[in-house]
Amino acid sequence: GANKNSIKIIGDHTDMYAQAYFAYDSKKSGGVTISHLRFGKSPIKSTYFVNKANFVACHNPSYIDKYNMVQDVIPGGSFLLNCQWSVDELDEKLPAPVKAYIAKNNINFYIINAIKVAKEIGLGNKTNTVLQSAFFSIANIIPAEEAKDYMKKAAYKSFSKKGEDIVNMNYAAIDRGAGEVIKVDVPASWASCEGELPVHKAVSDRKDLEAFINNIQTPCNAQRGDELPVSTFTSMPDGTFPQGSAAFEKRGIAVDVPEWIPENCIQCNQCSVVCPHAVIRPVIMTEEEAKNGPASMKTKDATGMAGYKYTMAISVLDCTGCGACVNTCPAKTKALALKPLDSQIAEQESFDYAHKLQSKPEVLEKFKETTVKGSQFKQPLLEFSGACAGCGETPYAKLVTQLFGDRMYIANATGCSSIWGGSAPSTPYTVNAEGKGPAWGNSLFEDNAEFGFGMFLAQDTLRARAQAHLKAVAEKPGAEHAKELIDKYFETANDGAANAKATKALVSALEACPHKDEDMAEVLKLKDYLSKKSNWIFGGDGWAYDIGYGGVDHVLASGKNINIMVFDTEVYSNTGGQASKATPIGAIAQFAAGGKDIKNKDLAGIAMKYGYVYVAQVSLGADKNQCLKAILEAEAYDGPSLIVCYAPCINHGIKGGLAIAQQVEKEAVEAGYWNIFRFNPALAAEGKNPFSLDCKAPTGDYKAFMMREVRYNSLTRQNPEKAAVLFDKAVANSKKRYDDLVGLVDYYKPAE
Amino acid sequence: GANKNSIKIIGDHTDMYAQAYFAYDSKKSGGVTISHLRFGKSPIKSTYFVNKANFVACHNPSYIDKYNMVQDVIPGGSFLLNCQWSVDELDEKLPAPVKAYIAKNNINFYIINAIKVAKEIGLGNKTNTVLQSAFFSIANIIPAEEAKDYMKKAAYKSFSKKGEDIVNMNYAAIDRGAGEVIKVDVPASWASCEGELPVHKAVSDRKDLEAFINNIQTPCNAQRGDELPVSTFTSMPDGTFPQGSAAFEKRGIAVDVPEWIPENCIQCNQCSVVCPHAVIRPVIMTEEEAKNGPASMKTKDATGMAGYKYTMAISVLDCTGCGACVNTCPAKTKALALKPLDSQIAEQESFDYAHKLQSKPEVLEKFKETTVKGSQFKQPLLEFSGACAGCGETPYAKLVTQLFGDRMYIANATGCSSIWGGSAPSTPYTVNAEGKGPAWGNSLFEDNAEFGFGMFLAQDTLRARAQAHLKAVAEKPGAEHAKELIDKYFETANDGAANAKATKALVSALEACPHKDEDMAEVLKLKDYLSKKSNWIFGGDGWAYDIGYGGVDHVLASGKNINIMVFDTEVYSNTGGQASKATPIGAIAQFAAGGKDIKNKDLAGIAMKYGYVYVAQVSLGADKNQCLKAILEAEAYDGPSLIVCYAPCINHGIKGGLAIAQQVEKEAVEAGYWNIFRFNPALAAEGKNPFSLDCKAPTGDYKAFMMREVRYNSLTRQNPEKAAVLFDKAVANSKKRYDDLVGLVDYYKPAE
Ligand SMILES: Cc1ncc(C[n+]2csc(CCOP(=O)(O)OP(=O)(O)O)c2C)c(N)n1
Ligand SMILES: Cc1ncc(C[n+]2csc(CCOP(=O)(O)OP(=O)(O)O)c2C)c(N)n1
Ligand code: SF4
Ligand code: SF4
Ligand code: SF4
Ligand code: SF4
Ligand code: SF4
Ligand code: SF4
Repeated sequence: GANKNSIKIIGDHTDMYAQAYFAYDSKKSGGVTISHLRFGKSPIKSTYFVNKANFVACHNPSYIDKYNMVQDVIPGGSFLLNCQWSVDELDEKLPAPVKAYIAKNNINFYIINAIKVAKEIGLGNKTNTVLQSAFFSIANIIPAEEAKDYMKKAAYKSFSKKGEDIVNMNYAAIDRGAGEVIKVDVPASWASCEGELPVHKAVSDRKDLEAFINNIQTPCNAQRGDELPVSTFTSMPDGTFPQGSAAFEKRGIAVDVPEWIPENCIQCNQCSVVCPHAVIRPVIMTEEEAKNGPASMKTKDATGMAGYKYTMAISVLDCTGCGACVNTCPAKTKALALKPLDSQIAEQESFDYAHKLQSKPEVLEKFKETTVKGSQFKQPLLEFSGACAGCGETPYAKLVTQLFGDRMYIANATGCSSIWGGSAPSTPYTVNAEGKGPAWGNSLFEDNAEFGFGMFLAQDTLRARAQAHLKAVAEKPGAEHAKELIDKYFETANDGAANAKATKALVSALEACPHKDEDMAEVLKLKDYLSKKSNWIFGGDGWAYDIGYGGVDHVLASGKNINIMVFDTEVYSNTGGQASKATPIGAIAQFAAGGKDIKNKDLAGIAMKYGYVYVAQVSLGADKNQCLKAILEAEAYDGPSLIVCYAPCINHGIKGGLAIAQQVEKEAVEAGYWNIFRFNPALAAEGKNPFSLDCKAPTGDYKAFMMREVRYNSLTRQNPEKAAVLFDKAVANSKKRYDDLVGLVDYYKPAE
Repeated sequence: GANKNSIKIIGDHTDMYAQAYFAYDSKKSGGVTISHLRFGKSPIKSTYFVNKANFVACHNPSYIDKYNMVQDVIPGGSFLLNCQWSVDELDEKLPAPVKAYIAKNNINFYIINAIKVAKEIGLGNKTNTVLQSAFFSIANIIPAEEAKDYMKKAAYKSFSKKGEDIVNMNYAAIDRGAGEVIKVDVPASWASCEGELPVHKAVSDRKDLEAFINNIQTPCNAQRGDELPVSTFTSMPDGTFPQGSAAFEKRGIAVDVPEWIPENCIQCNQCSVVCPHAVIRPVIMTEEEAKNGPASMKTKDATGMAGYKYTMAISVLDCTGCGACVNTCPAKTKALALKPLDSQIAEQESFDYAHKLQSKPEVLEKFKETTVKGSQFKQPLLEFSGACAGCGETPYAKLVTQLFGDRMYIANATGCSSIWGGSAPSTPYTVNAEGKGPAWGNSLFEDNAEFGFGMFLAQDTLRARAQAHLKAVAEKPGAEHAKELIDKYFETANDGAANAKATKALVSALEACPHKDEDMAEVLKLKDYLSKKSNWIFGGDGWAYDIGYGGVDHVLASGKNINIMVFDTEVYSNTGGQASKATPIGAIAQFAAGGKDIKNKDLAGIAMKYGYVYVAQVSLGADKNQCLKAILEAEAYDGPSLIVCYAPCINHGIKGGLAIAQQVEKEAVEAGYWNIFRFNPALAAEGKNPFSLDCKAPTGDYKAFMMREVRYNSLTRQNPEKAAVLFDKAVANSKKRYDDLVGLVDYYKPAE
């Protein structure tokens, strides 16, 4: 944003020609943007990137030893580094080739601590405006005061809709930015520094993954993907990427990360539930294991499991610093506190150690996965995604992978989930120690339900074929020894966990059998399809309510055992917040710039009309237990399921940011903004009421809830009369909605 | 079917090579099929139509003076004519050129009365098998008994699923067909006959229509469309066809047509309501008009309107002979009876006379269009379509055009409604005396709702623009004289009929105004868009429940004043009966060959979930008044509406045929197979219960209802166990469905 403003200012207020090109990666947090700005007195005809620059600014200190940056500055040019280091520390912190280049090429070297400035002003980690101001003060294109004026005007235009506060903070950033720049006296000694940027070679037991990281991911992440020859990819012609590669990025993008304070911790595991990035994980280990761990590893006695130790492992280099864990921690005195990443770096070693320990059956025996606490001792098979720091979508997806990830198929709709779920080159979906993890594929925005239906039908057909051969095996004389195992297999056929076990035992037995006839051979050929799979279709509300709804409806109508999870951000998040049919009345969104004037669609209510579809509406922060139950019930139900998840998003403009996403989820339900319930057809079959309204009558203040979010409060500034009308309607709708839900409890009550 | 079997028999049971090509038009009743069969001892390489045939059969006597048929027979070849004429009548009935060709070219001329034979056997008007047998007996390709055997085997294959009865009837047709052929001794005098086939030149006040008929429609209908040069079409580059051209076809395809028996008639107009082809119409005329009519015109005193005469006008040449009117007539002694077309031909003149009389305001004043009887005094603007004789879809569409046709926009989904609604070259949608009729367009199967939404938005935008200019006009000094008219216009803006009137008065006044300023000029430029339009989207269940559902949902969600009418035949009718989500459990359909095993989708129930969508489920034969009310309420409601119409279809295989479609519609509701209800959000706004269940608890026998239809009863033959299971489920579902509807009455009851 700020860089776009800068080039506009130059173009508009000087007699120079201007050109700008911005290259992004697809990470939503800590993503890399390269801004190529050109300007000059003669018309610009260059159609290539800037690689001989007069000025280069590095906005993130961690890039300094990842990318060749200063090397793009021409001799005598300027280089600005944003960092929290003092001038004295530079010698130690900067890599040798950077120092050498600066010294040898007479580079004007500046530093600034924009992070500190932004924090002090109240802009959190938004350093852009500070750095914009620094740029103008160094580049000296426009007189200092004039430049400030232009920047302020641009800032006003960008932020006035978001409120006066935000405008004022940006003014402050502009005023202070210029003054904070420090010109570094470059020591002559730097010229003699020798060395290359450190190259991190990945090492993994999974050789395909290792090769992928080293040959593809690392170069791509170093912004050198364009240079890879086609031959790099010839071994992967179907485009399948190995899972688990995101864990090799260790981007270290957080400014602050949580520090665990064991003495305060009540071992509730809630921090782990809510972490959008699977960074913070409870681990129970034997005393032996605890002893063998890194010295700095903190532990405490595991509650309820004598002789075991509990630790909260934090992968600080993967943390985004969103603060969700800290805000969620319910301990009387918080057991988590945000600390600068630098100070916590040792935690990474502890995490890596704890992560590698074998998962313990006795832990899962004690703390069942059907409880919120127990679920967190299961390995998340979605980790370290590039979602926005604090994203409301990923905690739901992560939880599903903790429960069923080892036998999951996921069809994914284009949208944020396709970006955080697979932002090339890295893949956050991963595998467990046995090498099992979700099979994930993304088709299109519009046809994802159909795509997932196809995935289901394909594997279901193969499974049925395998089962037919298995039945033939069972009926043959001589199969007596396998009889029990085969029976067990068929008995558990619809129960994911039990069937996985039964299948494992069965396959071992069949593999060990010395006389394999044709049917047995066929069963073994299809062994990967034998066990019960967990079929999921993931997508956003734009997909599920709008563009892909025809397919969603078709899958629900099919009666097949497929689970649909909708991440409901109430807008098309990935493309910047267009209105969907999930967008509530009164919200400002793209295509609803004047505030949406019709209420949102009741997708869950519509799905319930089928009668044979499991339906739930959930909000993790409001009731983690209800959410977990819904996911478990949906998966267990032998038919289609739909779970609609309330997901706060950066596009909502929440005052307090996504750090409080979980609190927002809670208050949304309290205010009657969102309702949680479950509809389980399996209960109806038992003569019970299938519908369970899981939230009390709203007590919170609906309008106050809305007013915390820019998408609503901006309407009160833009068009107060309309805002008043629409918000009143919103309140009335919310009342009616809750009443109708109460009515449904009655409607679905079984006849005596 | 029979011709396909014939060529198969020849190919399979002789040493000859065989080739067949069948050219169809798109009419669903009385459509023309030309079968080109080639066979011979040497391989066939011809890629063109047969036009030098050894044998030609004319299956429909009415074709004999429409098409050049016998001229395709080579000298010495054979010609078979199916007709009800005796040998003696031929001289009179056959056109001169036919007689001349036969005599001059030594043609072996045969006739057969297959219509009589088929009727006697019980095959109704299905003459194909009789004629197939006649063909084999004349063509002498295979020894007679052998040929019969093969034909029977083929018939068994074709019909065994439809039941033993039908197979036996076809056996009888094969046995009798050969014996009924009469070889005609051609009188030598025929050789001297002179003349051409009669050419009917259309005459119309509407010159564009007249030109279209004569230059395009007539040649196309004579199967000479391929010969038209491109230049024929240059005056119509946008592809718009003039309305009302179907009335010029006068196809005379019915064997029997209704005769009106005035003394029995109670003037209820129900025959007119149900006629799928708008053939039978009540007309009230002055005594004067009655006197001036054709002598053969039957009338009686109009009930309730002293001094007026009532007649039932029947356009016998457009009648399909479906019998729906006769079966529906509720008179103690039926006031309609089917009689051979020939005997009723004079009725056409009476119809043409009565049809041209001016519509009488006093009639519509006395018999309101809001009553079933009154609605039938309004001109149907959908007439003489090529739908199957007795089609269950068209009566609904026709009724809508009677109510709003003069101000209607229709977006049509591909399906039967696109064929009967516009089977090129003819158009059954027509205009009234003022030249106003539905604007009809067909987009695609999958995007019709979106297409209709676009039509709505386009006209709504233009209307808003016109209204803005009109407001400007009103505010200017000097506009006082128009003030009242403008006020009236805006007051009635949302009421179709009233606004049409107000607009007319307003436009006349503005046009008469000598000083037209810019705004007034703009209003007049847009005058066609000023009045309130009635926006409709038509389509089948395949479209609405399945392929186009995403769009249907989007339109319903939009809140805009658009009406959706679904012709629910419970299958994809137009393509031969594929299962849709509307297909009920237990029905056999394509893609559900083993019987559909999941219940149908509750489209109406789903739409009700929006709360602001008017929703109705109707069944004309069950309650004409409820259906009419639903249509009127839907149109009057200032928001989206959905009407789901139960429509029996030829694909259901109803025992008794579509002649009893209305009775089926009635019994469907009595049996609980179909429920009728209305949900009117406007009532909720008034504090009343918006939901009205319009049918009593079912009393009929559900299974007996199903068993009348081949789609169900064939499953009992094919797989009795499965049939038993599915039909039990169907009964249980139907009970639950009705109970749930009763529950909804309660659910929607307004809080005290
Ligand atoms: C047919 C089509 N139209 C538009 C797009 C661009 N597009 C990609 S993601 C997206 C929005 C997704 O929104 P949503 O489904 O709500 O998911 P979210 O990003 O909110 O998680 C859009 C419009 C596309 N990929 N395909
Ligand atoms: C995308 C697409 N798929 C298939 C077709 C072929 N097609 C034309 S009409 C039709 C069936 C229409 O069924 P329905 O909507 O139930 O209407 P009905 O014919 O029953 O009135 C199909 C499959 C098509 N035109 N477009
Ligand atoms: S700060 Fe955010 S990313 Fe980091 S551990 Fe806490 S919740 Fe996870
Ligand atoms: S949320 Fe707090 S108390 Fe609970 S496990 Fe995490 S750190 Fe401990
Ligand atoms: S859903 Fe919102 S918060 Fe999450 S990644 Fe997308 S834009 Fe960011
Ligand atoms: S027989 Fe059929 S087409 Fe003819 S008038 Fe009666 S209802 Fe209409
Ligand atoms: S249905 Fe029978 S009684 Fe009624 S108007 Fe028609 S002919 Fe007369
Ligand atoms: S809906 Fe059925 S009866 Fe009507 S035209 Fe189509 S196939 Fe024929």
